[in-house]
Amino acid sequence: MREPGEEKDGEPDRWPGAGGLPFDPEAFRREGRVVIDWIADYWASLPGRPVLSDVEPGEVAARLPAAAPETPESLAAVLGDLDRIIVPGLTHWQHPGFFAYFPANASGPSILGELLSAGLGIQGMLWTTSPAASELEGVVVDWLRQLLGLPDRFRLGGDGGGMIQDSASSGLLCCLVAARERAAADGTGQRIVYASADAHSSVVKGAKIAGFPAAAIRRIETDSAGRLRPDCLEAAIRDDSAAGQIPCFVVATVGTTARGAIDPVPAIGAIARRYGAWLHVDAAWAGTAAICPELRPRIVDGAELADSWGTNPHKSMLVNFDCHCLWIASRHALASALTTKPDYLSTAVGDAGVVVDYSDWQVPLGRRFRALKLWMVLRMIGAESLRQRVRDHVAWTSEFTDLVAADPAFEILSSPSLALVTFALREGDAATAGLLARVNRAGPVFFSHARVGGRLAIRMAVGGTLTGRADLLDAWELISAMSRAGGNEPGRPEGPSPFSRFP
Amino acid sequence: MREPGEEKDGEPDRWPGAGGLPFDPEAFRREGRVVIDWIADYWASLPGRPVLSDVEPGEVAARLPAAAPETPESLAAVLGDLDRIIVPGLTHWQHPGFFAYFPANASGPSILGELLSAGLGIQGMLWTTSPAASELEGVVVDWLRQLLGLPDRFRLGGDGGGMIQDSASSGLLCCLVAARERAAADGTGQRIVYASADAHSSVVKGAKIAGFPAAAIRRIETDSAGRLRPDCLEAAIRDDSAAGQIPCFVVATVGTTARGAIDPVPAIGAIARRYGAWLHVDAAWAGTAAICPELRPRIVDGAELADSWGTNPHKSMLVNFDCHCLWIASRHALASALTTKPDYLSTAVGDAGVVVDYSDWQVPLGRRFRALKLWMVLRMIGAESLRQRVRDHVAWTSEFTDLVAADPAFEILSSPSLALVTFALREGDAATAGLLARVNRAGPVFFSHARVGGRLAIRMAVGGTLTGRADLLDAWELISAMSRAGGNEPGRPEGPSPFSRFP
Repeated sequence: MREPGEEKDGEPDRWPGAGGLPFDPEAFRREGRVVIDWIADYWASLPGRPVLSDVEPGEVAARLPAAAPETPESLAAVLGDLDRIIVPGLTHWQHPGFFAYFPANASGPSILGELLSAGLGIQGMLWTTSPAASELEGVVVDWLRQLLGLPDRFRLGGDGGGMIQDSASSGLLCCLVAARERAAADGTGQRIVYASADAHSSVVKGAKIAGFPAAAIRRIETDSAGRLRPDCLEAAIRDDSAAGQIPCFVVATVGTTARGAIDPVPAIGAIARRYGAWLHVDAAWAGTAAICPELRPRIVDGAELADSWGTNPHKSMLVNFDCHCLWIASRHALASALTTKPDYLSTAVGDAGVVVDYSDWQVPLGRRFRALKLWMVLRMIGAESLRQRVRDHVAWTSEFTDLVAADPAFEILSSPSLALVTFALREGDAATAGLLARVNRAGPVFFSHARVGGRLAIRMAVGGTLTGRADLLDAWELISAMSRAGGNEPGRPEGPSPFSRFP
Repeated sequence: MREPGEEKDGEPDRWPGAGGLPFDPEAFRREGRVVIDWIADYWASLPGRPVLSDVEPGEVAARLPAAAPETPESLAAVLGDLDRIIVPGLTHWQHPGFFAYFPANASGPSILGELLSAGLGIQGMLWTTSPAASELEGVVVDWLRQLLGLPDRFRLGGDGGGMIQDSASSGLLCCLVAARERAAADGTGQRIVYASADAHSSVVKGAKIAGFPAAAIRRIETDSAGRLRPDCLEAAIRDDSAAGQIPCFVVATVGTTARGAIDPVPAIGAIARRYGAWLHVDAAWAGTAAICPELRPRIVDGAELADSWGTNPHKSMLVNFDCHCLWIASRHALASALTTKPDYLSTAVGDAGVVVDYSDWQVPLGRRFRALKLWMVLRMIGAESLRQRVRDHVAWTSEFTDLVAADPAFEILSSPSLALVTFALREGDAATAGLLARVNRAGPVFFSHARVGGRLAIRMAVGGTLTGRADLLDAWELISAMSRAGGNEPGRPEGPSPFSRFP
């Protein structure tokens, strides 16, 4: 067999064109090293950078050319623009002072796993389109299931199964559609979705996409610790049932976004089961902490009652975004709701059911080989180190909380849940908002905000790859110093943008 | 500021654990080079590999450990297993003899773009979570819009906009939801979706997810060339309107999966507009060919009537999966259907509308920095070379078709549409199926199948990164030789798998 690009019968392949072969192994080796070094330098530079950019809306767009080039440019030119134009406009999620939202942490093994996935360039929509991609995914997701202590019902060998999707939002949507279809057989009333008032916005978004009217979404009251109240859930379900409506989908949140509250899953699961509703556990952030046996009970208790259970190794488990792991108790329920297999996608093994085609379990048809990065993190970092990270983050957050609590100007709004704590100035929301803005503008840290018990909170989520205990201590020094200094906070939003450069 | 991992006040950070820092720049440099070289070697090895794997269901899973390791393993151990267990179980999508489905081609610049995206590890859900990620995305997607000759209405400066999603399926779903919400204001009848009988399975899948009952999906008759018949569409819409139903969403396909047929978009658009339905153009595969001015008219004609228009640079434009570009005429229609912004995601610039938050335009909340790979392909390969590739593939496919047509045993079932042709043995479907199986088992090539005019077709889609004219000539030699040799095709599906190793 010939090498790529070689001629046959004296007739040249007309490609390569001006830019050379689109994959030239030697150029790739050379350029690949440059990019690898660029990334290593970038990570080494992170502690010295401000976490947040100060670019104005439209500023980056204005610095980019208005049209694509006709002829090839060099890697050096691209990396030069990356340094000059793009990087100064980024929020540095991998910065050791990034405490906002939830961490979306990466690691060496994970970046290399993503690189291998891109380098192999396979597309695993069906088992036959790359058997090893489907089977490695099934296996490593089951490795994680075991590490978390999730029940056997989610194992691929029985009726269940696990998979990787891009995000908890997409996974929830697929489960919601499966629940909707399962409930459809039960009658003609309106199907109802239940989640706590503090559940993630993806519940409402998924319900909207799946065609549930706003009136079919019940936000259930929480207790003072932000946990869904089972008594309120049961009352709502009872009322709906009595009114001829169909309790369809109940979301239990294990780790709410605002304050990390963990809903009482066993009680919620018992109610869902009694009324025939699908129980989905959204453990997007907190779920992976169950790799520590001492933290496991509150996280996985009740999972045996769940129809689906999802968590994000791309949050604090060192797998770069995107990697959402979703387990389902009945893969047939999911596949029957989502499968739409035209003739051109049929395969003998798929039709015979001796394999699973993971595209039947998700919204998109195509699939990247995401299992590689999870595999590489689990193997090259190992379960022991991953557990130690969780324990460190929890301990450091507790220590940080003690510092905040000891300062009479501050108040803890929600005590730490794993490595998430919220706090505020006693002076009130305006003072807290001003302090948060000043602290974020200072450079070394980034916190996001939340509402906790009606109050504006500074929200600290610990889990960054490079974040160490010292970074939390530094962060507290900065916050307390700035709270004593006071100051005004100028506003920002002004002109029209999106993103103004477009002529 | 301290370096990561450094101590403060004599108190050590407890991490690093057994596995070292999760990102150690020096280890990353060293290991990154090894992985880069591994990928270069893999691509160089492709022409000598069989395209398809011969593993049995469950075989790969059986060769993997039953549980994750407790302690770290080396990169060498992982790459060893990749070579021994994973690669032999892959379908090699980047192989020069891959002619199945649609190409999902990668390139050096694209792989490096994906690597940079993983290495930066930012998450661009909101403008503020990385301004440069949103703005680069807006700009490069507009570069592509200009290269394709798409109308100004899709430009971010006005009411429209462009973005990158993972797949055409997801993009279509979002547009369908926006159309459903827009139509909801018009009345209480059932909203109806229209697409040709040959439209992609993602239409039915999207409609199912969005809650449309099966009875609300009209598959419109096609003409003998596989194109949606506008007269049949108009009749269906007229009947539905007369019956009090709401024509909601019309899909025009530019390049059907089975045979590459291009629906008459201007006529379809005129009808959709007359009845107030949303027009979505699914140009997933064929769309990027519009970078060639001489091919453009049939592809983009009618786009000025479209509410949304999508194409996949991850098919034949050398951007590795995933990269679907979606343009919409009214970004407000999309955002108002999908936005669910809780307090913790609100930002001053977002609330003021001086930026767009792309997560409001898609299903998932999180977003990878996909614009980098599209940027790098456009810059490092350049528009001229990308056009030449399309022209080459079209010319080679035409030449291949002439060879097939000259063989009396064969019949062209659909003449080439761009670089896609289907053909069959005159002897009938059973003979074609047997030949296809034998050819695919031979090793050097992989074709998928389709139904064309009720007949089973061997389907050839040309667009692989390494594929040259010689590979098409070799493929034809193999096919014609095997058609003369004849032979039997043993069956395959047997035992229970999914994927049997799970105990």
